[in-house]
Amino acid sequence: MTRIFDDPAEFADDQLAGFLDLYADRVRGVHGGVVAHRGDQPQVAVVIGGGSGHYPAFCGTVGPGLAHGAVVGNIFTSPSAAQAYSVGKAADQGRGVIFSFGNYAGDVMNFGIAAERLRAEGIDARIVIVTDDVASADTEEKRRGIAGDFTVFKVMGAAAAQGLGIDEVERLGRAANAATRTLGVAFSGCTMPGEDEPLFTVPEGHLGLGLGIHGEPGIRDVPMLPARELADLLVAEVLKNAPAGAPHRVGTILNGLGTTKYEELFLLWGHVSARLRDAGCEIVDPEVGELVTSLDMGGCSLTLMWLDDELEPLWRADAYTPAYRKAAAPLAALRAPGADELAEDAAVVTAPEASEAARGLAATVRAALVAVEDTIREHEHELGRIDAVAGDGDHGRGMLKGITAATARVAGAGEEVGGGWLLQQAGQAWAERAGGTSGVLWGAALEALGRRLGDTAQTYPAAEVAAGVREFATTIQQLGGAALGDKTLLDALLPFAEELERRVGGGEGLAPAWVAAAEVATARARQTAELRPRIGRARPLADKSVGTPDAGAISMGLVVTAVGSVLEESK
Amino acid sequence: MTRIFDDPAEFADDQLAGFLDLYADRVRGVHGGVVAHRGDQPQVAVVIGGGSGHYPAFCGTVGPGLAHGAVVGNIFTSPSAAQAYSVGKAADQGRGVIFSFGNYAGDVMNFGIAAERLRAEGIDARIVIVTDDVASADTEEKRRGIAGDFTVFKVMGAAAAQGLGIDEVERLGRAANAATRTLGVAFSGCTMPGEDEPLFTVPEGHLGLGLGIHGEPGIRDVPMLPARELADLLVAEVLKNAPAGAPHRVGTILNGLGTTKYEELFLLWGHVSARLRDAGCEIVDPEVGELVTSLDMGGCSLTLMWLDDELEPLWRADAYTPAYRKAAAPLAALRAPGADELAEDAAVVTAPEASEAARGLAATVRAALVAVEDTIREHEHELGRIDAVAGDGDHGRGMLKGITAATARVAGAGEEVGGGWLLQQAGQAWAERAGGTSGVLWGAALEALGRRLGDTAQTYPAAEVAAGVREFATTIQQLGGAALGDKTLLDALLPFAEELERRVGGGEGLAPAWVAAAEVATARARQTAELRPRIGRARPLADKSVGTPDAGAISMGLVVTAVGSVLEESK
Repeated sequence: MTRIFDDPAEFADDQLAGFLDLYADRVRGVHGGVVAHRGDQPQVAVVIGGGSGHYPAFCGTVGPGLAHGAVVGNIFTSPSAAQAYSVGKAADQGRGVIFSFGNYAGDVMNFGIAAERLRAEGIDARIVIVTDDVASADTEEKRRGIAGDFTVFKVMGAAAAQGLGIDEVERLGRAANAATRTLGVAFSGCTMPGEDEPLFTVPEGHLGLGLGIHGEPGIRDVPMLPARELADLLVAEVLKNAPAGAPHRVGTILNGLGTTKYEELFLLWGHVSARLRDAGCEIVDPEVGELVTSLDMGGCSLTLMWLDDELEPLWRADAYTPAYRKAAAPLAALRAPGADELAEDAAVVTAPEASEAARGLAATVRAALVAVEDTIREHEHELGRIDAVAGDGDHGRGMLKGITAATARVAGAGEEVGGGWLLQQAGQAWAERAGGTSGVLWGAALEALGRRLGDTAQTYPAAEVAAGVREFATTIQQLGGAALGDKTLLDALLPFAEELERRVGGGEGLAPAWVAAAEVATARARQTAELRPRIGRARPLADKSVGTPDAGAISMGLVVTAVGSVLEESK
Repeated sequence: MTRIFDDPAEFADDQLAGFLDLYADRVRGVHGGVVAHRGDQPQVAVVIGGGSGHYPAFCGTVGPGLAHGAVVGNIFTSPSAAQAYSVGKAADQGRGVIFSFGNYAGDVMNFGIAAERLRAEGIDARIVIVTDDVASADTEEKRRGIAGDFTVFKVMGAAAAQGLGIDEVERLGRAANAATRTLGVAFSGCTMPGEDEPLFTVPEGHLGLGLGIHGEPGIRDVPMLPARELADLLVAEVLKNAPAGAPHRVGTILNGLGTTKYEELFLLWGHVSARLRDAGCEIVDPEVGELVTSLDMGGCSLTLMWLDDELEPLWRADAYTPAYRKAAAPLAALRAPGADELAEDAAVVTAPEASEAARGLAATVRAALVAVEDTIREHEHELGRIDAVAGDGDHGRGMLKGITAATARVAGAGEEVGGGWLLQQAGQAWAERAGGTSGVLWGAALEALGRRLGDTAQTYPAAEVAAGVREFATTIQQLGGAALGDKTLLDALLPFAEELERRVGGGEGLAPAWVAAAEVATARARQTAELRPRIGRARPLADKSVGTPDAGAISMGLVVTAVGSVLEESK
């Protein structure tokens, strides 16, 4: 949702004013848009444009090596002919003007009128229309322009910066357009400033195939796909529409539409690049990020420009604009890592020999970890929800990541190892994969428990296990620096350890003592709702926390309860 | 909402794999994160990090002039000590390692353990913790780190690139942190991969003040503010927390959290920069964009770093990383525009002398335009909704923009001008401000009507007005290239013109004839629901359009109806 504005009707002008203030050292505002400061040598002026709401399209790509001016229309609306004329006239450096824009009726009309007016004044004016969206029509000339705008602008900007004449720059721009294909998908709509409802919606759990950057509905909706299949779809559809006789080197853009963020695009890129290489493509200077957006729309698009010997150096050329900057020199100064750097010193540690009792313990440890994984998986979302009240909501996910890593590590260990070793391995895996405070604490505590129990004992009496649990608790206390009553997992763990010691000390068997102590832990975990946090990230939010229990204490109660069930069964 | 992933639990690793593929020419993956390729001279290694989900923090700012490595944790979760150790060790170039990260308990613990391990191996390891978030605590050392991470990393990266030793780089990093303050606001929550519900929500119509980048709830919610007041709030709160004796030059970041887009940030920047200058600040190399995000969270933050003579050159220094690139040379090659370029050739046109009848007509034109503005304003959202079914949904907004510009232009004209001139002025303003196809058509048609009526006639008989309307329609037909039945505004306009001519030709007065013709236009506009579009942007979506009338025909019906009421009143 678009949230920052004053008068919604003035949004386009107001944002342009801020842009011009920000980049006053490299562009100036003129009626209708933006013109770049000039360099020493006059160049053919590449003037791009269209509606607002697509940043960095269009004014974000004005500058050395790219466009010389951008016409800035209202949101998702073609600029007027007067605006295009004004920017074209101001951008002209005496070598003529090329207007370039996506293929929309309003833009075609207005830029056309503007070009006529410039020609009437003796300024050579050309038009290069971008038609990259394969979903919008079967024939090339009817297709609209979306993220492929960028490849066409980039090629013409680089050609102009090299000092080429207007005929050449125009010809190369048309060649770039002829070599460029895009397919986009949308996950969610965008909201115009001042509106409460999105311009359109994509049915929940679906994606809109071929949806346009002005929120034009997609050609059809398909069920949402995992990233791998989404990559398959995008690559297959774009390749299917390759120009005849296309070379195998491709400039590539994986473009985010606004709300689809970088990490998502990188994840998708991992699949897209593999598919492209499988198909025999050689990827040249790929761009993954936001080049043509649609306000806060969710979605992405894949653009390929098939590169011949003319287009490739223009695609790779340097540029320096507000939103797009590319330079060969800083990378040329780097050297690839040497063999010594790449050599991994994998610390191989072997398990000590284990007693029969230790191998018996190992069976219990394996079963206990699996039971813990089950209960954490079952409660993951609930733990996240509890944590989100006054924390960052990652507790369920972190615990699951930790225990999953632990069970995986343990599953990979041989049958001959002991329970103490397994607990240490589980702890290391947990800390490594879960991350975060609770990951470190859980990992270190499991390691400590494992070290305490060891793999050489002939028996593991209940008192020894209780002492191991005490070691577990002490490790967390010392590393985390918290105390009873601070609203942490200790508020469940310390009463648990104490109750276990008391019952075992009184001669009770391990299983019933553990189960009884787990009940105490669960009850005390619930009671943390009454506490105010006194440590850690939640501190500034202490007030919000009261009334909700501590997620770490709750998960501690779940864990010891699950382990208790395993002990009872294995009695 | 986070949409692109395979196994949500593997999101952080999967996105990192894509990132490493994309930037294989400048970084390499190591256990736990990313290490930059080295330059010729060994440098102190600045190793940054924290959880995933904040791109470009942290791996997006690894490269020449910035960080030497980034530790990549799970989403919103501290990386493990083993990860931090591994990246630190790989990044070390023999001159020591500085770990730098935001002040969160898990990060402090894990990076601390990693630094100890490096030191145990004889590698000099230091820690610089970022504490910029003024909303998170009263005392500096307790504050958490948010977008101010970037200023601290930037200063240290530049210092290391200059070849300074570890003591100096550490000292400058601490100085940068001591000079940096941030306040953030959130408008909406973010969703973890695989989750359906956001991690938290901000009450609709509110903003969360001081909300953290992991979705920690804000300190308090306040009603949503217009951009101007939001800028006031951010600037006032950050300045209130300025370090004692702060210099007046400030490095500035206006940071978007993910869903708050560039145009919104530019708009806000226009106000922020004005407030800062009002307060006596000199803004140095401001950055407006996404430097520290939180998945798809809505919100932004303002960071100031008060610059002394040591910090300023480091803030301004070149850098070249995946997400942040800065170079002085391309800008130095530009020249500011000369006086000749800045001189605006304002084409001043004066109104012709108007007859008394033309001045009478002017009164009707003024009243009619106001009535049209009222009806369009009333129906703006409805027109947008209709247009969104198979178009881009901007019709209501475009019409309102056009008519508002027309009435404003006319209101500014003197009392002595004629109605023909006024209509031409209205048309020019409409086309200029509304943009888009319909803006061009409406503007050109109003101009044609005005030219036809002129300002010299002694009377304006009904037949002359009807002929003017025909001219209006013909202009649209010729410019737009559409015909009756193509599902455009012509399907209302042509029947209107015909009915008006028929009735006026039969001797009926202008007002009753116009009102009756308007009824025909309205009816025919509604009947366009049955038609399939045959022209313009809606073409690929023809099927979706059937059952919904054409927005342009509907607005044409509204306009002629409103004008009819004015004619009846002024009879």
